[in-house]
Amino acid sequence: MTKDYHAISDAQDARATELFRAAPDIMRGHRNVTQAAQSPAALDVKTTEMMALAIAIVQRCEGCVVYHTKQSVTHGASREEICDTIAVAIEMGGGPATVYGADALAAFDAFSK
Amino acid sequence: MTKDYHAISDAQDARATELFRAAPDIMRGHRNVTQAAQSPAALDVKTTEMMALAIAIVQRCEGCVVYHTKQSVTHGASREEICDTIAVAIEMGGGPATVYGADALAAFDAFSK
Amino acid sequence: MTKDYHAISDAQDARATELFRAAPDIMRGHRNVTQAAQSPAALDVKTTEMMALAIAIVQRCEGCVVYHTKQSVTHGASREEICDTIAVAIEMGGGPATVYGADALAAFDAFSK
Amino acid sequence: MTKDYHAISDAQDARATELFRAAPDIMRGHRNVTQAAQSPAALDVKTTEMMALAIAIVQRCEGCVVYHTKQSVTHGASREEICDTIAVAIEMGGGPATVYGADALAAFDAFSK
Amino acid sequence: MTKDYHAISDAQDARATELFRAAPDIMRGHRNVTQAAQSPAALDVKTTEMMALAIAIVQRCEGCVVYHTKQSVTHGASREEICDTIAVAIEMGGGPATVYGADALAAFDAFSK
Amino acid sequence: MTKDYHAISDAQDARATELFRAAPDIMRGHRNVTQAAQSPAALDVKTTEMMALAIAIVQRCEGCVVYHTKQSVTHGASREEICDTIAVAIEMGGGPATVYGADALAAFDAFSK
Repeated sequence: MTKDYHAISDAQDARATELFRAAPDIMRGHRNVTQAAQSPAALDVKTTEMMALAIAIVQRCEGCVVYHTKQSVTHGASREEICDTIAVAIEMGGGPATVYGADALAAFDAFSK
Repeated sequence: MTKDYHAISDAQDARATELFRAAPDIMRGHRNVTQAAQSPAALDVKTTEMMALAIAIVQRCEGCVVYHTKQSVTHGASREEICDTIAVAIEMGGGPATVYGADALAAFDAFSK
Repeated sequence: MTKDYHAISDAQDARATELFRAAPDIMRGHRNVTQAAQSPAALDVKTTEMMALAIAIVQRCEGCVVYHTKQSVTHGASREEICDTIAVAIEMGGGPATVYGADALAAFDAFSK
Repeated sequence: MTKDYHAISDAQDARATELFRAAPDIMRGHRNVTQAAQSPAALDVKTTEMMALAIAIVQRCEGCVVYHTKQSVTHGASREEICDTIAVAIEMGGGPATVYGADALAAFDAFSK
Repeated sequence: MTKDYHAISDAQDARATELFRAAPDIMRGHRNVTQAAQSPAALDVKTTEMMALAIAIVQRCEGCVVYHTKQSVTHGASREEICDTIAVAIEMGGGPATVYGADALAAFDAFSK
Repeated sequence: MTKDYHAISDAQDARATELFRAAPDIMRGHRNVTQAAQSPAALDVKTTEMMALAIAIVQRCEGCVVYHTKQSVTHGASREEICDTIAVAIEMGGGPATVYGADALAAFDAFSK
């Protein structure tokens, strides 16, 4: 029962594409928000992506954990930085954050190969 | 990895039936709540079902998204109305609502065939 | 200890204005999202505002309850429609939704005077 | 800035009474749920009230923390039992549960005088 | 589509073990929290495990529901006590708690065989 | 109705001190977690404090927003960095994150004077 994070990510992308087609205005609005958040003025984008990952872990959103882990890898996050990120999520999210944090680490290992 | 929303729905119904058998008082109480919520005085039931769907998306509850999408279809919701519902969920729920909203749209397409 | 919903709303607006000044890009992005969600294609805006209120109640966000109750009043929601909205929130949110739902009703009474 | 838990509780009761008047069907449904949950078959009601309190702490719902602390006192919960309850909430809810757990303890001290 | 709760539990344990290896300090800290919560002073550990389960249901965390159901079985919880626990979760969590509560009951049946 | 963030912080500290006295084991466990999270291996502590703040905003926990804003100030966070942090919270948390994000900015201004 090892999860296939690549397949989870691909299926999710396909569904998001369909939602973009069906509801372009709201999805374009959300893209504006994402671009604003991921073009930080004082921090760097690797840091803001890991912040988004920390939040996703606490939100117990598997799809978001997969997405923001993949983005963190793209922006050069190291395994040690991901572990620091998971630690903050556990501080703020307790037991459930250990579950979704372990998912983030496994996804990191899958995406960084 | 396309999700089989019919199978998710059926498995969930089976588990709910077993819970009803094991804990009838609380489940009867919950049914009273559901019936009160889904017998609106001033709105129509299609609207209140879509409201429940909007909430389910924000709650990141896959089973609830499947259930209330199916109910919305039963009460005649159109694809465009589901998209409007998803948009409000994204306004209130941010990134995770795009993930579960995309699920709602895919479930709608499965149930409305 | 009756709450002063007008004062809560005003203080909140002042803080939001300051955030808009300090972080215009993200707030403009969020405004795009809000405008997309509150310009529905198939539903009407009174309905989508009440959907946002239903979500706010379940999210246990007092400031959001106040804001979206006020918006619902502006778009012509009746007291009976607000009660239908609260009912769906209770269906999906249980006990805490009775607490924040009662707040929504009290805020409605304050704003609709 | 010590909180007046009695006043919070009274104001909340007044708002709930008004909601009951305005929306009796949903509130009667919710009362059925509460009665089923608080008439356990195998546990005792003091335990189920403290369970509700543990959940309320994790939900970060101040009004619910106040309500279920008061109910726990009514059903004979000791200060030590409340602390055990808060501990489980911290296990599952992390940092925010220390904030709302500290509120539960202060409310307990107010209501058990 | 019946869920294999043993397989879910095993896969989760494997991921948690890897997280422990990669981030021992935070996981040791979390273990301290868990041990404190599950060594109650006035309640018994079966009760605090069921409290954790009640919270997990309301949090809509499948992995946590599986874990704390298994722990509740280990500490001698009966099917009737699990149903009482689910009832409190439904009181506090509404509709989504019926979904994750039904999961808890199915997991109980799997682990108590 | 401007909030007095210093007073909120002081009252909260007093309640936390009392919880520490009443339930030292769980609070010591939580302190271990916090120390592990706030002694990052690869990131710096200013970053992990802002991560905790981003999570707190999404969790809609006023007390946590106040606490982690204060900690961020202590570790040298600039107003621009706080705005970047709020932006990520809005990306992941939608409308409610604008409410609690505006609170974070106001608290920053209070604590950094």
